[in-house]
Amino acid sequence: MSLAEWQKIEVRADRSYPVFLGAPLQELGEYLHSQMDDVEHILIITHHSVADLYFDRLMEGLQDYRVNLFKIPAGEEGKSLERLSQLTTSALRYGADRKTLVIALGGGVIGDLAGFFASVFMRGIRLIQVPTTLLAQVDSSIGGKVAVNHPAGKNILGSFYPPQAVWTDFTTLESLPWGEVENGLAESIKHAIIADSDLFEFFEKQEQSIKQRDPSVWREMVARSSAVKVRIVSQDEREQGVRALLNLGHSFGHALETEMNYRGVTHGQGVSIGLLAAAYLANAKGFITLDEVDRVKHLLITFGLPTVIKGQDSQALLQGMKTDKKNQGGRKILILPKGIGQAVVSKECTDPEILAAWDQVISSDDEVES
Amino acid sequence: MSLAEWQKIEVRADRSYPVFLGAPLQELGEYLHSQMDDVEHILIITHHSVADLYFDRLMEGLQDYRVNLFKIPAGEEGKSLERLSQLTTSALRYGADRKTLVIALGGGVIGDLAGFFASVFMRGIRLIQVPTTLLAQVDSSIGGKVAVNHPAGKNILGSFYPPQAVWTDFTTLESLPWGEVENGLAESIKHAIIADSDLFEFFEKQEQSIKQRDPSVWREMVARSSAVKVRIVSQDEREQGVRALLNLGHSFGHALETEMNYRGVTHGQGVSIGLLAAAYLANAKGFITLDEVDRVKHLLITFGLPTVIKGQDSQALLQGMKTDKKNQGGRKILILPKGIGQAVVSKECTDPEILAAWDQVISSDDEVES
Repeated sequence: MSLAEWQKIEVRADRSYPVFLGAPLQELGEYLHSQMDDVEHILIITHHSVADLYFDRLMEGLQDYRVNLFKIPAGEEGKSLERLSQLTTSALRYGADRKTLVIALGGGVIGDLAGFFASVFMRGIRLIQVPTTLLAQVDSSIGGKVAVNHPAGKNILGSFYPPQAVWTDFTTLESLPWGEVENGLAESIKHAIIADSDLFEFFEKQEQSIKQRDPSVWREMVARSSAVKVRIVSQDEREQGVRALLNLGHSFGHALETEMNYRGVTHGQGVSIGLLAAAYLANAKGFITLDEVDRVKHLLITFGLPTVIKGQDSQALLQGMKTDKKNQGGRKILILPKGIGQAVVSKECTDPEILAAWDQVISSDDEVES
Repeated sequence: MSLAEWQKIEVRADRSYPVFLGAPLQELGEYLHSQMDDVEHILIITHHSVADLYFDRLMEGLQDYRVNLFKIPAGEEGKSLERLSQLTTSALRYGADRKTLVIALGGGVIGDLAGFFASVFMRGIRLIQVPTTLLAQVDSSIGGKVAVNHPAGKNILGSFYPPQAVWTDFTTLESLPWGEVENGLAESIKHAIIADSDLFEFFEKQEQSIKQRDPSVWREMVARSSAVKVRIVSQDEREQGVRALLNLGHSFGHALETEMNYRGVTHGQGVSIGLLAAAYLANAKGFITLDEVDRVKHLLITFGLPTVIKGQDSQALLQGMKTDKKNQGGRKILILPKGIGQAVVSKECTDPEILAAWDQVISSDDEVES
């Protein structure tokens, strides 16, 4: 396959960069040769399991480079300052310098950790995002947001650090466990709710094909969902305005993930609950009809995403929203859907209203789950 | 004193910002009121001793803000990932958010730590540099370089993060211990060597007045030396070219500081040794005469800066230069003076030449120091 046959979308920002869709892993090396003539050393940051699956294919194109591999265990706990410190030690031991290129090979955690490392190592070295999960392909690899977690909050330390390119090989999705697929679907559905009602209808129409992993439907889903993200971050790279809408469901979701210490809840599950809580809150505010809330709920259930959580305390979850990065002067700033295909930033939600939304997604332990 | 009476130099970069020279601490608040109408919360990061001296004066203008103070002990060990983590915990406990303004009140370590924190906290919040040492005023507060140390190397993790403004009150220099003055003089002399032969002659002519801390001579020294830094970083904010010259003496100096674990050697002493080692190396390369090397040496000695070190191993120091951030593909990149008032980047220095330069600034333990 030649460069021309891949789909290429350009992120137009302070420094523009291409997102290649359907680009084979083994051809990344050829692209690097054509674009960056001063790279000698490459540091690939990845998970153990991802390395087992894709390292050899990626290396087919990287024979001319000095390559080191840094592998971390799976999970959010990989995104910490401690891991950043280990990575720094290893990078220096490998002889990394300002000309070193970082390749983030993996999902959202890898993209965030490797991206943040690249943004601060020697005050910034080059980065290529090679997303291998649905979530990373449709969302986290695009837009330059990178960060690590801190015991006091998720993604609290980070940067806006655009990569040189995003290199998306669809074949990596074929073997993705369904739990991982769910994470990406939650973000894709979020994109549809905030900015693309056609994409939402596509999800509704293609429910079965998506569940059956029909390759052509998946390609279309990834391409259309990535396009939403590219469009939004091109308008507002630094999240001064419209980009904030991408946080729909995340203020709720992050609070839930933090409260549960990232155990027993995936990011996609947190976002799913968060999307629905935000929808209930938007309904209370008159922004969305109950029919539309039900359409959102139906889609989440169809794909196996949760719409209720058990045994959580809404007061504690409300408390957990206090450290959300969007808050200003102690006021909570929330994103709410406005019908399907639009969203708004609201500074007007009171704590009792937010509590009521939480209560609509919390079931007591003895209730039967729907 | 009104705003108009202070000297103001503009750093012209991606985002331009003013450097105010001779601006009273107690008037910063008035400036903030006039420039940033959405600041409610201020986090001042400083040393214990600096807070004792200047916090009250600074607070005179900050009565309308919610202000928190984060104090760290003196020394390079303050610039660590661990400290960054503590700072993050405290900032969140204080209710810091994206609108919080960070004020770095102190010397180079404070500017680096507070600046790096501001650059990554919630992906970047606003920063004002209030340098209180000579080194910070003439050098480190200008140009946006911020970083923390890592056991594997100095300033290895950092950013380019321009402040909103640099606020320089000359009166903070009056009580500065001479050891601190030396740190600033080493950098000022470096500025003169690489870019301003008139400034170098000013140092030679005003030796006595500088040693006696004549206020008007000091003001001129700070203003002229700051102006060199402003001029260079305005040409090349991201160190793609001419800014690299500011590293004169620092590849040697950092190696020495790292080798000695930042104990028993100040930054200024490291730079002083480094300036002279670089001068010897430049002489061996034919870039500078022995007379000029002697002029450099004489000036350093006059101000109490060291020109020899005892009991160091040149091989170990050479080894320590391997992790210098300027290096590329394993090649050492060094800055060398070219006469006085100019400097060049050299990729052509061999390890034996570098060793010879080290040997010229190392004395064995039983030699008498000059």
